[in-house]
Amino acid sequence: MSDTSGRRRRGGGRAGNATRRGSLGVIEQMPWRVPVNQDKPVEPLTEDGVQAIHEGAMRILEEIGIEFYNDEARGILQEAGCTVRGDNVRMGRDFVMEMVAKAPSSWTLTPRNPDRKITVGDNHMLFGNVSSPPNYWDMRLGRKVPGTREMCANLFKLSQYFNCIHFVGGYPVEPQDIHASVRHLDVMYDKLTLTDKVAHTYSLGAERVEDTMEMVRISGGWSEEEFQASPKLYTNINSTSPLKHDEPMMDGWMRMARRNQGLVVTPFTLAGAMAPVTMSGAVAQSLAEGLCAVALAQYIRPGAACAIGTFTSNVDMKSGAPAFGTPEYMRATQMTGQMARFYGLPMRASGVCAANVPDGQAMWETSNSLWSAVQSGAHMIYHAAGWLEGGLIASPEKFIMDCEVLQMIQRYMEPELWATGPDEIALEAIRDVGNEGHFFGIQHTQDRYATAFYQPFVSDWRNYEAWEEAGSVWTPERAHHIFERIIESFEAPPLDEAIREELEAFVARRKEEGGAPTDF
Amino acid sequence: MSDTSGRRRRGGGRAGNATRRGSLGVIEQMPWRVPVNQDKPVEPLTEDGVQAIHEGAMRILEEIGIEFYNDEARGILQEAGCTVRGDNVRMGRDFVMEMVAKAPSSWTLTPRNPDRKITVGDNHMLFGNVSSPPNYWDMRLGRKVPGTREMCANLFKLSQYFNCIHFVGGYPVEPQDIHASVRHLDVMYDKLTLTDKVAHTYSLGAERVEDTMEMVRISGGWSEEEFQASPKLYTNINSTSPLKHDEPMMDGWMRMARRNQGLVVTPFTLAGAMAPVTMSGAVAQSLAEGLCAVALAQYIRPGAACAIGTFTSNVDMKSGAPAFGTPEYMRATQMTGQMARFYGLPMRASGVCAANVPDGQAMWETSNSLWSAVQSGAHMIYHAAGWLEGGLIASPEKFIMDCEVLQMIQRYMEPELWATGPDEIALEAIRDVGNEGHFFGIQHTQDRYATAFYQPFVSDWRNYEAWEEAGSVWTPERAHHIFERIIESFEAPPLDEAIREELEAFVARRKEEGGAPTDF
Repeated sequence: MSDTSGRRRRGGGRAGNATRRGSLGVIEQMPWRVPVNQDKPVEPLTEDGVQAIHEGAMRILEEIGIEFYNDEARGILQEAGCTVRGDNVRMGRDFVMEMVAKAPSSWTLTPRNPDRKITVGDNHMLFGNVSSPPNYWDMRLGRKVPGTREMCANLFKLSQYFNCIHFVGGYPVEPQDIHASVRHLDVMYDKLTLTDKVAHTYSLGAERVEDTMEMVRISGGWSEEEFQASPKLYTNINSTSPLKHDEPMMDGWMRMARRNQGLVVTPFTLAGAMAPVTMSGAVAQSLAEGLCAVALAQYIRPGAACAIGTFTSNVDMKSGAPAFGTPEYMRATQMTGQMARFYGLPMRASGVCAANVPDGQAMWETSNSLWSAVQSGAHMIYHAAGWLEGGLIASPEKFIMDCEVLQMIQRYMEPELWATGPDEIALEAIRDVGNEGHFFGIQHTQDRYATAFYQPFVSDWRNYEAWEEAGSVWTPERAHHIFERIIESFEAPPLDEAIREELEAFVARRKEEGGAPTDF
Repeated sequence: MSDTSGRRRRGGGRAGNATRRGSLGVIEQMPWRVPVNQDKPVEPLTEDGVQAIHEGAMRILEEIGIEFYNDEARGILQEAGCTVRGDNVRMGRDFVMEMVAKAPSSWTLTPRNPDRKITVGDNHMLFGNVSSPPNYWDMRLGRKVPGTREMCANLFKLSQYFNCIHFVGGYPVEPQDIHASVRHLDVMYDKLTLTDKVAHTYSLGAERVEDTMEMVRISGGWSEEEFQASPKLYTNINSTSPLKHDEPMMDGWMRMARRNQGLVVTPFTLAGAMAPVTMSGAVAQSLAEGLCAVALAQYIRPGAACAIGTFTSNVDMKSGAPAFGTPEYMRATQMTGQMARFYGLPMRASGVCAANVPDGQAMWETSNSLWSAVQSGAHMIYHAAGWLEGGLIASPEKFIMDCEVLQMIQRYMEPELWATGPDEIALEAIRDVGNEGHFFGIQHTQDRYATAFYQPFVSDWRNYEAWEEAGSVWTPERAHHIFERIIESFEAPPLDEAIREELEAFVARRKEEGGAPTDF
């Protein structure tokens, strides 16, 4: 952990978008530009409603308590004045609110390429790739198969390729061909060499968290002091609903807090299963589970970079299967957005669906979830590209189709769309064209047409006959073709060779040492 | 046109939803219940922006003028004080605003079944079927074919079957196997016998408008006085952008105004083609084209039931083809919503896409357009089910897929979703379940699970393996299957036999008389 300020340059430098576009010119995509949410959030709750949910969350924490299956966490919370009985921890609202008030309303994440630095908060909308499916599906295979390192790497390549993906979440598919003891090493190596965007790490045990933090530190050429000066990566933990935080998640949470890295807590509160069947009850429970983790982080490190996530949805009451992108999901996301603003915390939402293949259902469910993320004022949107089957399948076709929707959201947020200056009202152009002409050829159009409108890359806007002439290709097939061409021509972002070697050596050493312990 | 108050009962009576569900129990659908928009509209324009667009629209009307290719309309407008030169009519903002102020902000439409009465305005969201495609596509055919009367009738059956469809728009597909001179008679007969919902008529010449008004009057068993007492059907006219109103549309508009029927004017202002490439310019032009028609209607009949529609979208600057559900489309729809509220007029929007088949692209484009209708506070949403290829294709699979989205919007608007009373916060249920249990079996869940969540009818929420076991059926195939079963078991809504005979006799007589003149 030497001080290596001179090494920072090795971290990558400018993304060189224009250059990479030349070699990766498979599609014309929008530039890297983080969308800033311009819409007032949709707020179903009245002020009384906000208070009722807050009161519910506080009473859960005060009267029922959360089980912390982590000795250290319980010890810290006891020291902080919470009531600890066995694994159960109850905390008063004064403590919770005092701690939550220490959390910043926005914070940054800086990856090895400083041009890819992102801000979590401030109305920025950050999209990340699908994370953690065990399985993979693509059009060529036509079936669901266990994930491999190659599939995982290909999805990293898509995550890097698409400018509308701002951060790289967890494993885009779980590479089951790598032993669990060293999986985190190989995948983090792939992630840090194939992408230069902000990385996530799983809180799955001390070794994994420390190994991956160290690899990210190496990737940026940062000293430990520099690494800790501001968040460079983040973790996302899930409570075990109802009302439990498990050992490794809490361990990672505290380790990341100590080294000042990004912390996102996302309870998986499926209404009717792990939470009340009523949405405001599910949201209250989700908040209780999230806020107690935020309180712990703030006690450990006042000002720690925290965000609360929502994964509140409903089950299919016929099968018990989780449903996504439902009306209940949308309203729960909006309600959570109101509560996140009430607590002054950045918020994470998701782009999700229950569909098994990248068809119409997949896209209306995903559209519903993504628009509810917009409506809720969410800052980080996980799983925004590539998710199928309630998160059990990653699909490159779905990834590419989702990126079209994400680009449209990016474009939707550009204020020039609703500019109303004299040039936009265009009275003189309307006068010139008059009642008989058209606007195709006039100067006002010529001056603007190249950038006036969103240009799609997978949508086919031709008429039926032209589409038929071109082979009658449905959307997922078109997406598959784009996927193959991106992978064929993919060029990894620049990385200093010395840093690559240092990462390789670290991986080799940790493998020799046996990697991380496994439960099996 | 005898006074037949005793005949009103023949109009149909209660829809008998429960009964029809028994015989038409192909799917479990939501009940007939018009969604009331609960969300504050998304308003991209500042107050200055609203004024700038208003100013633009007024200056178009004052300085450039609109061509009215209708002698009678020009005569009336001249009488009203407008400046008429040749076909060109200029009108001052004082006149326009004085007339627009006479238009009601909400009005009703009453079809032959009074239970299907709808209100246009008051935050109600009304969905109508796809209207006017010349062609048809379904999964069994697998290709685009010219529409027939049978296809048209089948789409009427879907429009009747689905409770989320509140009004029946124009021909859901143009039945090209019926001669144009009598097409309006046969299709209106099918519409009035296969459905009992509010009907639309085209403003395509005096005979067609008068014939169809007469048929609707007969269908309800209304005297002329009763027919005129409140709107029973509506028309939608499109200006011929830029800045023209054609002869038959204006003729129908005035005839409908005189008999106090519903009037919707929707300019088709494709930015970059028939309107400025800048969205606020396209919106200003659209408003000018719409408001002058509203002014004419109000001059003819103060208080006439008017609404302004938006069809402002952009072209694909590569091919010139219209695009739908784009970011530009969404913002234009929202801006038009702001302007409709500024003018105090109900608003019409659409559910539209450019996709040629009912795939992922179709559904993200349609979702974008439908959510922008929600965000804009639109009251009538045309083409909300069944539209493909920019309106050139009607598809029953798309119809059924769209109805799932419409039902989700209906459910999304039910305030119980965000209720925050003690029963919904459910602290006692959370306490009872504690940290170890789950919520499946508890009383709080049992009491609510049957109605707690949206239940889909075409979405498949099963996991991949169960879905595969069931045949790996993608969404459009599932929709096709549902379509076939609905058609097989369709039962027309009740209609008094005497009214049916009167309609038949009317159609026969008008056919004998030669129907309507045709241009070809």
